[in-house]
Formats: sequence, C-alpha cells, structure tokens
Amino acid sequence: MVEISRGLEDVLIKTTSLTFIDGHHGVLRYRGYDINDLVEHSSYEELIYLMLYGELPNRKQLNEVKAKLNENYEVPEQVINAIYSLPRNCDAIGIMESAFGIMASVYNPKWDKEKDRDNAIQIIAKTATVVANVFRAKEGLKPKMPSPSQSYAKSFLEASFDRKVGEKEIKAMDAALILYTDHEVPASTTAGLVASSTFSDMYSCIVAALAALKGPLHGGAAEEAFKQFVEIGSPDKVDEWFKINIVEGRKRLMGFGHRVYKTYDPRAKIFKKLAQQLSQENPEIKKYLEIAERLEKLGIETFGSKGIYPNTDFYSGIVFNGLGFPIYMYTALFALSRTLGWLAHFIEYVEEQHRLIRPRALYVGPEYKHYVPVDKR
Amino acid sequence: MVEISRGLEDVLIKTTSLTFIDGHHGVLRYRGYDINDLVEHSSYEELIYLMLYGELPNRKQLNEVKAKLNENYEVPEQVINAIYSLPRNCDAIGIMESAFGIMASVYNPKWDKEKDRDNAIQIIAKTATVVANVFRAKEGLKPKMPSPSQSYAKSFLEASFDRKVGEKEIKAMDAALILYTDHEVPASTTAGLVASSTFSDMYSCIVAALAALKGPLHGGAAEEAFKQFVEIGSPDKVDEWFKINIVEGRKRLMGFGHRVYKTYDPRAKIFKKLAQQLSQENPEIKKYLEIAERLEKLGIETFGSKGIYPNTDFYSGIVFNGLGFPIYMYTALFALSRTLGWLAHFIEYVEEQHRLIRPRALYVGPEYKHYVPVDKR
Repeated sequence: MVEISRGLEDVLIKTTSLTFIDGHHGVLRYRGYDINDLVEHSSYEELIYLMLYGELPNRKQLNEVKAKLNENYEVPEQVINAIYSLPRNCDAIGIMESAFGIMASVYNPKWDKEKDRDNAIQIIAKTATVVANVFRAKEGLKPKMPSPSQSYAKSFLEASFDRKVGEKEIKAMDAALILYTDHEVPASTTAGLVASSTFSDMYSCIVAALAALKGPLHGGAAEEAFKQFVEIGSPDKVDEWFKINIVEGRKRLMGFGHRVYKTYDPRAKIFKKLAQQLSQENPEIKKYLEIAERLEKLGIETFGSKGIYPNTDFYSGIVFNGLGFPIYMYTALFALSRTLGWLAHFIEYVEEQHRLIRPRALYVGPEYKHYVPVDKR
Repeated sequence: MVEISRGLEDVLIKTTSLTFIDGHHGVLRYRGYDINDLVEHSSYEELIYLMLYGELPNRKQLNEVKAKLNENYEVPEQVINAIYSLPRNCDAIGIMESAFGIMASVYNPKWDKEKDRDNAIQIIAKTATVVANVFRAKEGLKPKMPSPSQSYAKSFLEASFDRKVGEKEIKAMDAALILYTDHEVPASTTAGLVASSTFSDMYSCIVAALAALKGPLHGGAAEEAFKQFVEIGSPDKVDEWFKINIVEGRKRLMGFGHRVYKTYDPRAKIFKKLAQQLSQENPEIKKYLEIAERLEKLGIETFGSKGIYPNTDFYSGIVFNGLGFPIYMYTALFALSRTLGWLAHFIEYVEEQHRLIRPRALYVGPEYKHYVPVDKR
C-alpha cells in the first residue's frame, strides 16, 4: 500500500531553530523571542542578526549589521534598466523575479560558510532597492536608491517616496518587517529550499521563493483581504455585505483562517494596533479600520467556534495603505520582509542538514505501447 | 517518534502518467512509449503533443502543434534587452531566470484548463528564442529570432548559429530534446510544482524550476562530465588519469551513477550513438568520444558491480559540443528540453491533483527567552 503525501501535509522537510509556532495558543517566536517583545523593543536590524547568527547582537554587532546594509543598497544597472523598461501594469513579483534573476547571473555567489551571512545581508539590502524601485517604476517615478541611515525601514520608505517620512511610519514599517519575517516552511520557503538543495546560488533560491509566493493561494492574501474592505466601501455597509456574501456563501471571507493557527494569529493583533495608530491622522485609514473591525466581529461570531480567526493578512493591508502603498505592492512588501526568513532557512538547510531534495512520483500511466507512425493514427 | 523526510527521499509528492522509469532494467518511457522508439521514429513536436495531451498526434494535430510553435517564437523586447545588456560572463541559467521573470510579469497567464496547453506550447516556443539568444549574447553575436520551420530543432539551431545547419545536426538536436524531456520529479520539477501549487503563473513555475536546475548537484552534471574529457586531453592519457584521480580517490567520476538507475541509463546509450554519428566528420568530437569510451570501460570495470554506470550526462556534452555549443550552454540546453516535462507535470498537478504544497519543519530551537536590551547583552 503506497500513500501519496498530498501537499506534503505533515511531512517534516527539515528541522529548524528559527521559528516556533503554537497554533492553538496563538504564539509565534523567532529563535525563542516572542514577536510581541520583538515588535515592542527590537528592530529589524536586530532581527537580521538574530535570524542569521542565532543570538541578539551586542551594540558592536548591531552597528556592523547597519553598516553592511548601508554599504550594499546598490544593484547592477541592468536591474534598474529591467525594472523601468517594463510596462507599468506588470506584476510586481514577476518584476522582482527578473531583478533577482539578473543578480543571480551577475553575482552568482557560491555557498561558503565564511561568507553566507554577509551575502545574506547584502541581498537584504538590495531587496529594499528592488522593492522601492518596483513601486516607483509602477508609479511612473524616477529611479531612487536608498540612502544610508540608522534604520532599514527608514532607508526603504525614503527611497520609495519623494516626501519626508515620519517616525510613526518608520516604526510601523519596521514592525511590519518583523511580523512578516518568517513563518516556518510555507510554499515559498519550500520552493527556495529545493533550489538550495542543489547548491543553487542564494539569489536563485530567492527567485524560486518569489515564484511560489506570487500565487494567489500564498502571497496574494493581504491584497485580497484589503480589496474586500474597498468593495464594502463604508462601515455601515458591512453587515449587509457580510450577510449577502459570506453568510449566504457567495464568497470566502479573506484574511480569515490559517492552516496552522486555530485561534487568533498573533501577528493580526499587532497589525491591528499599528493600523489603529496610523488611523489617528488619516480619515481613509480610519474608515477601512472601522470596516475591518466590524467585519472581524461578524467573522469571529460566525467562524470562531470552528477555529477560524483573523490571520496576519487581515489588517496588514490597512497598515501598508496607511504607509502610502497601493494594493499591488502588498505581496512585494511581504517579500521584502520574508527575504530574511527565506535566507535564514536556506543557510540552516545548506550548512546543517543538506541533502538534495528529490521526492518520487507514483506512476499510474499506461503500460508499454508500440509506436504507430503518424499516418496510421 | 517523529521522522524527518530528509531530501524527501521516497516521499511520493504526486502521481503521474507522464514518465515511467525502471531503474533496474534501464527503461524510460513517456506515456508508455519507450524513448528508443521515440528517438528512432518520432520527433520533438510529436512528443510535445504526447506529453501535453496524452496521446500521439494525428497528422492534423501534429500540424497544429508545428503552427503554434512557429507563431510564438517572438518574446517581449525587454527580454532581448535584458539578455544582451548582461556581461558576457554571466551565468546562462541566471539569464534564463531573468528572461522568464520578465515574461511572468508581462504575460502573467492565469491557470485555465481551456488554455493551459496552448500557453505551454507558447512557452516552449519562446524558450527556444531565449536559449538561442542567451548563447548569441554570450558569444557577442547580434539578436536573432527563430524562423518558422517544420522542426523546432531546426528553428532553434538556425537561430543559434549564423551558418547553415545540416540534417544530421537537426536530427541529433531533436534526439537530445527528446532524451532530456522528462525524468519524473527531480529537484527542478519539484521546485516548479511547489510554485504551481500556489497557482503561480506558468512562467514563474519555470523560473522556480530553473532556479533549482542551476545548482551544480542538478543541471550542471553534463558540463562537469565534459570538463573531465577536456582535462584528460587525449585517449592515450585516460588510463593514467583514471588511476591517479579516480582509483586513488582524488576525484569523483562525473557522468556516472544515478539515484534511480542501478544499471546503464538508457539515455546514455542513445547519446553515445548520436556522438558516434556526429564524430564521423569531426576529428575533435572523435577525440572526445574515444576518451569517453575508454573512460566508460574503466568506469564500468571499477564501479559496475556497485550499480554505478554511465548516466545521461556522460555522452550528452559530446553531442552538444558536436553541434557547436560551448560547455557553458549545456545546462541551458537541458532546460530547453526539460521545459516540456516541467510544464506537463505542472498541468497534471494543477488540473488533476492540486493541493497547496506546505510541509512542516520540526522546531528544535530554544524555549521562550526574555528580551534583553542591546546595551545589557
């Protein structure tokens, strides 16, 4: 009796010291640190060190991370040319695939324990440049490189926009980066792991992860959740929309439910707080937040008993919108953050537990057939 | 007791009606047809139909495949610009990743049973354009599009070179395309399957597969096998080289051994015949063939009893070299052929047995840790 591992459900593809998820109690930790603590006290630069090196950095180590980020924002001119030569309606993740494909062909780094973490930090820096410029190209703006600063979030936001970026926005961006950093081995991480298992270069491993993230069943969920808030339009229309579309089964409630969490996704609670903070000076965000909060209440009343609660994508779009990013950028912002988690998993796999990933398929097709010439078919 | 499925070895990720491998008897069949029969009697255009539609085509269906290929060799100008703007020493598969990333962002096709096979044939046509122009760009030649013809192999070879291409070469290229078309679910196919499981577009699924193929443990084997023939240099030096490097354990014999085949890889026998045919008018190929044949004899004497025999990559490089392609193109030529197998697997998975691929990782890291401020670390 042979069994197909459909969707590789419950198959353990690796061990990890990176991310711990307790889906029943709504707990998410990176290397032992709770994400609530990290968002409140830490920064994305600290998290980069934590994920890549295993411990929180001391002051000197933290400054080294910041210096390496600041030194590596430049990308090959071919990357900028490719991003700005594409039609403005092109898919953002597709553009990122081409940008990382170019960097894979130009840089093509070999795996090397002595250099892997430095290469990873370089890639994280360049990802900010790529994502900011994907946004700018799609908006019809001119290329702009991130400037060195004390904060990756600040450098990224200032490269994206042609306006001054406030402290509250930088803090929200930093938190969003932390929240989306890693979530064990979803499809994108798995695709990248398969690439890393052939010792393909790190940029190509990111390319593989992006290719999987691009699908609507994976990275697109925050976009879909926000689109439903836009469709509803105002807080007083939520109840009717919910009855017609969700109760009567015309649509799925987006941003609800998760294969791992059977309670409130801890990231959703934090994104909600961030959205509340950004809404104070922004009436449009306040409107979306009110829609979302009412929808959340109805959703939990209806689905909560089945373990279906808001997930990370329910409120993240409101935060991204509050920062000034349009819907088409949400998956790219997810990727900006997740690049760190991807790289940490690839390094963990290649350095500690490498084996070429080569499953099997069960043949269920025809037995031997004689070839028949075309005019006798 | 939990068990890690290291390398997903023996994990069945899907069923397939595409490719049957008997590793103990050296048998490889596509949809029931033995590859020896297909190389002798069939053509790559017939195989495209067979893999995508399940049966060999009748005359009308075959003509439709040829017409669709001939109509779809054009690629977006951004693809050509990207390929020719990269430094000539860039990695060929990395360039392919960027080309397919651009096409993913420009075309971004949705999955649709009514259109998937047409989209696949379009992608196969465009792959010929991409691979021919990766070669031309790296050689410092000008862009050239494939011209419509009765044969995909002919259109591809004529686009690659600025010389007349003979019938014997076209036949050898066609055979090489057939031989590398599919081999169940190696790492590249697996990475692409993971992407397809999120309903990522077909171009992105190819991008993921390319990213995995790029690794030296996967696509690079034919390049490594040929490099050892070059290193040996002449047939009279094989015995000494073998003794010093292989018998005394300094190097691994490249192009020998396979995780699935425990006897002669049936593709290797056919590639050897093709190499013999191409060698008749080409003294350099004749030299490499003599080196390879002597090395094969010594290799089988030494390793045959352990089930280690020549695999498909042992002779394929000699065939590619005989066609006029340098070593750096071998993996790209593998990809040119395998694109059909990849697409057939993705379509089979999405249409017949779709499930989001989401394995798990076993957490082995630290328990909860209190956050400590940076200056107290």
